Amino acid sequence: MVAPHPFDQITPQELDLVVKLIKDAHPEEKPHFAQIDRLDPPKKAMVAYLEAERQGVAPHPIPRRAYAYFYVGSDFHKALVNLSFKHVICDIVLPEGVIGPVIVDDVAVIEKLAVEHPICKAEVEKLCLPDNIHIVCDPWMYGIDADTPKKPLIQCYMYLANKNHPESNHYSLPLKFSPIFEALTHEFVRMDYLPSGADETTVNETTVWDEFPLVEYHPDLNGVTKLRELKPLIISQPEGVSFSVEGHKIKWQDWEFYAVPNAREGAALYDIHFKGRSVIYRLSLSEMTVPYGDPRAPFHRKQAFDLGDCGFGINGDTLNLGCECLGVIQYLDTHVITSTGKVKTNPNSVCLHEQDAGILYKHVNYRTGHTVVARRREFVVQIIATVANYEYACQYIFDQVGEIKISVRATGILSTMPIDRDVDVNYGTLVGPRVMAAYHQHLLSFRIDPAIDGHQNTVVYDDVYKMEPNTTLNPHNVGFYSERSYVEKAGHIDQSPFTNRAYKIINENVINPTTKKPVGYKIVMPARQMIMASEGSFNTRRAKFATEQIWVTKYEDDRLYAAGEFTNQSSQDTGIGEWANGVDNVRNTDNIVWCTLGFTHIPKAEDFPVMPVEMHEIGITPFGFFEKNPALDIPQATNKFNKSVLVKDANKNASASCCKSSL
Amino acid sequence: MVAPHPFDQITPQELDLVVKLIKDAHPEEKPHFAQIDRLDPPKKAMVAYLEAERQGVAPHPIPRRAYAYFYVGSDFHKALVNLSFKHVICDIVLPEGVIGPVIVDDVAVIEKLAVEHPICKAEVEKLCLPDNIHIVCDPWMYGIDADTPKKPLIQCYMYLANKNHPESNHYSLPLKFSPIFEALTHEFVRMDYLPSGADETTVNETTVWDEFPLVEYHPDLNGVTKLRELKPLIISQPEGVSFSVEGHKIKWQDWEFYAVPNAREGAALYDIHFKGRSVIYRLSLSEMTVPYGDPRAPFHRKQAFDLGDCGFGINGDTLNLGCECLGVIQYLDTHVITSTGKVKTNPNSVCLHEQDAGILYKHVNYRTGHTVVARRREFVVQIIATVANYEYACQYIFDQVGEIKISVRATGILSTMPIDRDVDVNYGTLVGPRVMAAYHQHLLSFRIDPAIDGHQNTVVYDDVYKMEPNTTLNPHNVGFYSERSYVEKAGHIDQSPFTNRAYKIINENVINPTTKKPVGYKIVMPARQMIMASEGSFNTRRAKFATEQIWVTKYEDDRLYAAGEFTNQSSQDTGIGEWANGVDNVRNTDNIVWCTLGFTHIPKAEDFPVMPVEMHEIGITPFGFFEKNPALDIPQATNKFNKSVLVKDANKNASASCCKSSL
Repeated sequence: MVAPHPFDQITPQELDLVVKLIKDAHPEEKPHFAQIDRLDPPKKAMVAYLEAERQGVAPHPIPRRAYAYFYVGSDFHKALVNLSFKHVICDIVLPEGVIGPVIVDDVAVIEKLAVEHPICKAEVEKLCLPDNIHIVCDPWMYGIDADTPKKPLIQCYMYLANKNHPESNHYSLPLKFSPIFEALTHEFVRMDYLPSGADETTVNETTVWDEFPLVEYHPDLNGVTKLRELKPLIISQPEGVSFSVEGHKIKWQDWEFYAVPNAREGAALYDIHFKGRSVIYRLSLSEMTVPYGDPRAPFHRKQAFDLGDCGFGINGDTLNLGCECLGVIQYLDTHVITSTGKVKTNPNSVCLHEQDAGILYKHVNYRTGHTVVARRREFVVQIIATVANYEYACQYIFDQVGEIKISVRATGILSTMPIDRDVDVNYGTLVGPRVMAAYHQHLLSFRIDPAIDGHQNTVVYDDVYKMEPNTTLNPHNVGFYSERSYVEKAGHIDQSPFTNRAYKIINENVINPTTKKPVGYKIVMPARQMIMASEGSFNTRRAKFATEQIWVTKYEDDRLYAAGEFTNQSSQDTGIGEWANGVDNVRNTDNIVWCTLGFTHIPKAEDFPVMPVEMHEIGITPFGFFEKNPALDIPQATNKFNKSVLVKDANKNASASCCKSSL
Repeated sequence: MVAPHPFDQITPQELDLVVKLIKDAHPEEKPHFAQIDRLDPPKKAMVAYLEAERQGVAPHPIPRRAYAYFYVGSDFHKALVNLSFKHVICDIVLPEGVIGPVIVDDVAVIEKLAVEHPICKAEVEKLCLPDNIHIVCDPWMYGIDADTPKKPLIQCYMYLANKNHPESNHYSLPLKFSPIFEALTHEFVRMDYLPSGADETTVNETTVWDEFPLVEYHPDLNGVTKLRELKPLIISQPEGVSFSVEGHKIKWQDWEFYAVPNAREGAALYDIHFKGRSVIYRLSLSEMTVPYGDPRAPFHRKQAFDLGDCGFGINGDTLNLGCECLGVIQYLDTHVITSTGKVKTNPNSVCLHEQDAGILYKHVNYRTGHTVVARRREFVVQIIATVANYEYACQYIFDQVGEIKISVRATGILSTMPIDRDVDVNYGTLVGPRVMAAYHQHLLSFRIDPAIDGHQNTVVYDDVYKMEPNTTLNPHNVGFYSERSYVEKAGHIDQSPFTNRAYKIINENVINPTTKKPVGYKIVMPARQMIMASEGSFNTRRAKFATEQIWVTKYEDDRLYAAGEFTNQSSQDTGIGEWANGVDNVRNTDNIVWCTLGFTHIPKAEDFPVMPVEMHEIGITPFGFFEKNPALDIPQATNKFNKSVLVKDANKNASASCCKSSL
């Protein structure tokens, strides 16, 4: 058996080992597991390891390590385990108030309890529901406010749904009571009653349910009687794919990198090289927060941290051929654990495939009519996570000119609130009868550990200004120029779209022979509204990363998560809020760049009962990294290769073959 | 023969007719034609016509009309022709200083003259060129400054290239002299000498060319010895396509509209309906300006108006199967005329096809594991124009939920300037030896003539603000809300990304039953730097549209072009600059929305010798137009339909079939 590569994901055997070691260390109690995964290798050792590999010499082995989060009674533990030497490195109880990620098995218990607990049952009885309607519960992380006790809690949002179909859309019928439970003991804490008027004053007792219809999305229920006709569009690769996967290492079109599934981030990419040159050491989604703008208690506590509170790999969907990605697909699995320490594999949770994306470059010499044209082929690493109501599809897209595009599609179902008839609010949208979807935001932090031709990098921003008018240089007043600023200390860069501000990661030690300037990559992000909760609110204090679009901090091992390691019921972040200290030097050194991809989601009627994707992107684009267009070495587009056909010929073939697929 | 529909493009027979009528009207002279095309039908009559068609009654016929631009001697004429009754409606000589679009045939003559004219030849001789190098000329519209005479001029940028290959990239070797010719008489006007130092002071006499290498893009010349290996990715529709084209009317996935090629805009789309409801009456690219930021004379005059000065249909590429779009394609042709009045057909200048674009919506019910997932199929109308060095691919992309996305890809070759060794400037990028690409901007104006459930529309913008903190409504300081503003008078809307400003076109007379708010569409555009030339400069005065992102003006027939009807050597615009007058009421009436899609192009080394596409988009998205997601009636994604395969199976098949395509 080949020893695992230091970047390889944790194996089921390694998970079993960690569980055994933890259980052995706590023989009297029953550890209640929250999360176990591989720790990244220390960067310094790993850089040497990779360098040795590239030089073809035997690298110095790096012990594989794992972390484990678990409860023993009410104590929240973090342990580190040496997987290579099979021992516990340390096992500490975290201070009171540090709360671990939500445990799926607890949620499942509480989801039932919220319906079956006598107090809840009594509430339900007051509704006098018809036979065909039943209660559904969406448990949520509790969030925080000044009154929150320092123990893990779960708040439950309650809904009605069609009892006769398991896919009935309960989000269209939110109820007005919300039981709270202790997450670990499953004890009932209290019943919250939800407001349903324009402000905080209308909070009603539960009364008889006034019947009105559900807004359904499932094909069995949505009332659609005639589907639109759509002819198949088949993507095939008759000669096989252009990429290779060995272990976790992927090679495609002069790219080389590792794609590694994990529990928290879904996947991380490592040691990204293009044409033999280093670009990024590590790339991942680091955190996401979803704060809601409905100010009325208890909705003020609706602020999810989808990675820190839940985990994108833990909630990773199983992807299916012909559904989430078309063509010729390779899948990777994710291995996580249950609360009792059993390995649970999320199969096919990461997909890898190629796609066509239109023209990459083209020029027609009008003198000769001769055309040079190349298609843009892309390689996609995709993970889709379902976090209760919402789905997030996160794609890392590589192209042939050295660009990496991060693309996020938000879909799924709006998290809804009950609203009384004829009430209108300016912080939410009516999306159905008596159902309101509050304004909210999705703020994702992507972490780039850059390695532009090495690990000594600098972050700069270039602004474009008008030249001074009526000078001898600029007598016609048409001139404009760019000016570069350097990020010297750990902190953020202000957004400035009207000076065309462009963020760049450069290597000041490597000069591009063509431009005579340092080589670099540009981070392309449109200007966006950042977190809207007031400064000083818990929402903002817990997610400092969400207050600005670009952050630069000094590199340290274990600075992986933008809002800190433990976000569940956190009262303030222990991530960027600490690291962006204005003190650490970040120029021409090893640093980390954090990009906040934020969007304020003002729901529209069309987002319900299931939301058409909203797509947002970050571009990581070579900017003076190469001496010239690095894709002159790709084949020209030809129809010999691409085999496109005219409609009249395709339709002729189709009728000739009586709708038989040609594949 | 069926009578043409009023929206149908001009036919070759109609072009012949116009030419004949104009020639007959000027029997003594030889008209020199610039442009002929169909005029839009008057909107009022056309709306009635369409309404009759929809009701299945015979519409009142609308005479077809054409416009013709031509010179008689030095007089610039505009004539209108009634095509249905075959007569000239009017024929006027435009005032002195109004200059028609650049005439391709003149350019061809001047392009040769710039090399062969004795004065130019004398200049070339001073270069003492080696045998394998020859001169190439790129004629340009002259632009304007205070000294420009009121007659049509052409400025010529001169380059060197490899004489032994017609595809040698002359843009990599710009020369330092620039002859000016009269466009119509082809008379030599003067020789300009180009600066090549950091400022305006270094303007040299032509001397012996100091040999250095070209930067080539053509596969024969670019020095690539080993192409990257890429396996085919085949897009097929074995059962035919999902769209139909009858005349110019297209039906696809509940969309109905007309796609009509034309000389100036490339194509215009008319009478766009989705699910039987009106969305847009007319949609097109209306103008594009490309001002350069190099302040040194004569570069200050580099400001192209690619539609008004040239014409996107006139310069439309012939698209080829398997090159600019993959899959199953239908093409449309464009018919234009030569200067002598001969019909010239640009074949396959518009392509129509379907594409897959990832997931459209998805939700997994984590309780049951059941997944609802639909793919996003798109329908694309694409035109690609080559305007000398640059290519622009303009796509109108329709999806299944009622969205229209406008996507523009800029590619081609940078327009370059000579630069002396070791000179660095802050208004341009070195892209090769002694070759600099000046900063410039691409500012495109898309014209939307909206018809959201009728022609009485209103433009609004919604901003998102933080709620006042520490109130009884917002005690936890997390709340935010939206506020609507109405555009009452013809003018623009300021950009405001940090209030999440969203532009919407609504119909105040139609209330959405779900949201209880007026139905509408949202215009999605990221915040952008607008034109950088100073206020009062010719660049800005000629392109007022480029100073703001969104404009709203009152509808009038013939208000089609953002910078006015005649842009060539214009000294100020006669479009939005006049129509956005702050006086006309534009609320709840028939209006026009103009979107400026602008990007400041700071060239990078990778953009040369041929530029990877830079892509920019506008979204036109239903926002409370429908009562709910309008795409619940599309088929669910399944692999029975999509026929995707695993890599291992694909690779197995590939090796089994010995690389024989399965198609």
